[in-house]
Amino acid sequence: MDLSYILAPVQAEMALVEERLRSVTGVSYVRFAQLLEHALKGTGKRLRPALTLLCGRFYPCNRDSLVSIATAMELLHTATLIHDDAIDNSEVRRGEATLNSMWGEKSAILVGDYLFAKSAELAASVGSIRVVTLYAHTLMAICSGEIDQDLTPRGQGHSQRRYFQRISNKTASLFAAATELGGLLGQAPEGALGALRSYGHNLGIAFQIVDDILDFIGEGEEMGKPVGSDLMQGTLTLPAILLLEREPRDNPVLAVLADRDKPANLRRAIEMVRNSSIIPECYRVAEGYCSRAQKALRRLPHNPVSGLLSDLLDYIVERHK
Amino acid sequence: MDLSYILAPVQAEMALVEERLRSVTGVSYVRFAQLLEHALKGTGKRLRPALTLLCGRFYPCNRDSLVSIATAMELLHTATLIHDDAIDNSEVRRGEATLNSMWGEKSAILVGDYLFAKSAELAASVGSIRVVTLYAHTLMAICSGEIDQDLTPRGQGHSQRRYFQRISNKTASLFAAATELGGLLGQAPEGALGALRSYGHNLGIAFQIVDDILDFIGEGEEMGKPVGSDLMQGTLTLPAILLLEREPRDNPVLAVLADRDKPANLRRAIEMVRNSSIIPECYRVAEGYCSRAQKALRRLPHNPVSGLLSDLLDYIVERHK
Repeated sequence: MDLSYILAPVQAEMALVEERLRSVTGVSYVRFAQLLEHALKGTGKRLRPALTLLCGRFYPCNRDSLVSIATAMELLHTATLIHDDAIDNSEVRRGEATLNSMWGEKSAILVGDYLFAKSAELAASVGSIRVVTLYAHTLMAICSGEIDQDLTPRGQGHSQRRYFQRISNKTASLFAAATELGGLLGQAPEGALGALRSYGHNLGIAFQIVDDILDFIGEGEEMGKPVGSDLMQGTLTLPAILLLEREPRDNPVLAVLADRDKPANLRRAIEMVRNSSIIPECYRVAEGYCSRAQKALRRLPHNPVSGLLSDLLDYIVERHK
Repeated sequence: MDLSYILAPVQAEMALVEERLRSVTGVSYVRFAQLLEHALKGTGKRLRPALTLLCGRFYPCNRDSLVSIATAMELLHTATLIHDDAIDNSEVRRGEATLNSMWGEKSAILVGDYLFAKSAELAASVGSIRVVTLYAHTLMAICSGEIDQDLTPRGQGHSQRRYFQRISNKTASLFAAATELGGLLGQAPEGALGALRSYGHNLGIAFQIVDDILDFIGEGEEMGKPVGSDLMQGTLTLPAILLLEREPRDNPVLAVLADRDKPANLRRAIEMVRNSSIIPECYRVAEGYCSRAQKALRRLPHNPVSGLLSDLLDYIVERHK
């Protein structure tokens, strides 16, 4: 499954989003411009703006507003990644050194805040109170997810319920906003907005589960970050939670949480997950969310992009990074 | 000049703002709740929400919306202080240890982001696109001011023009938003909005100049932070800029900027400022801005709070912390 095929109908608008992102880096402070360029360079998949643009095809809407909101989604996403990496002390993302690892936490705070402010300006610029209200709630959801991840004491928060609540806030809320906003700009009826939101939410959950799978089975080089990063940082993801459920005692996951300085425990946890049926089970869970997203798509008007949004679900599950 | 006298007419609404601020700390993570309580405890003067409430008296408006926006102003202010303190490595503010000094930069990022998100939610909650647009522009202005402060190389940015531009962004923009929003909620006519904005802006500039004066002449204990903090952090304020203009060579200000580890230079800079006519000159400049604020007040309808807003200008200049 090729992402460029899925994005073909919105290629022109994606180029406009890139242009807007580049314009954000045009500040008069040379050093700050460098930080922004590092933060916004096109190594990501730009999935969130793509979703806004594709979902904007169901109901006719102003193209400039759509590009603004798509850009706001990517800026908000980037801002949260930068602050998250600083909070988590992450050194690598998408195969690149993180901003905090290169220029320190202070730069990460400043760049993140600046991108937040830019995205808020863009969200406000389209002149719709529903758009900014959804934007503000999304900001709060992402924050709540991050708080839950960082403040749950190491070794607690084992439950699947907590996991799904956290990824719903931290990841799926922005996907759901990206898809719903595409409809909101075209004054889609409430039923269609609900369907767009449900598609985005379920796609977002599936996306995060696959991300969490790849953290266990991916090759570090391809992933652009070390294998087992989440567990090392004390974040319990679905594969780790399933391993804990199956082996409540003498579980290397607990050993990693108790003492992160023993890499042998991490290696053992990764091996146990890989040698069990946990990974296929996680994929089945992700596919369940994709089915719900498919169902939501069927509640939307027939449209040439429907098929592509359906293909995107396959892409999300099949991707390797 | 007593602040409680000025705030008497909005005392009930100020209590509601305090209640809203307390409710922000009601999160289920005990440790995070502690951080929020530390961040929001009532040691500040709450000037910004007070301005919104007082300015809300010129045109009748919904009381609940007014309290929401007043609360949003204080939350945004607090969020920026927390991130600024983390960026500047500040250890003390208002006589209290800063969040970053007590719990580290990561906590400061998280708490600041959470308060930003809360304030954005409140700003969006009143359902006015003009309110959120002004809010977003203010966020961007504050960010730009912080970037200018942090990214201007030490020893540059000597000009008064740069100084006024920076404090206009960093400080006065939020005061101007606080006053204009009070009018916006009451659908004040454009002329009145301009007057409210001008009052807030000029008051904000005067406030910052006095703050910068106090950094040179205040008593550390009363101020709640060490004397000369700004210069020590490489920030050139009006007294330092005037000293540089008068003594371009052999100036201890330059010596502090070149090497912050020699406290004798800082002591000498403070002494030179204190023994010159610079402080009275700075006060004259601040009073000039107060006069502009007074002029703006006269463009507003006659109202019992007009006199209090005028008194507030005197309070700002005469205060000792």
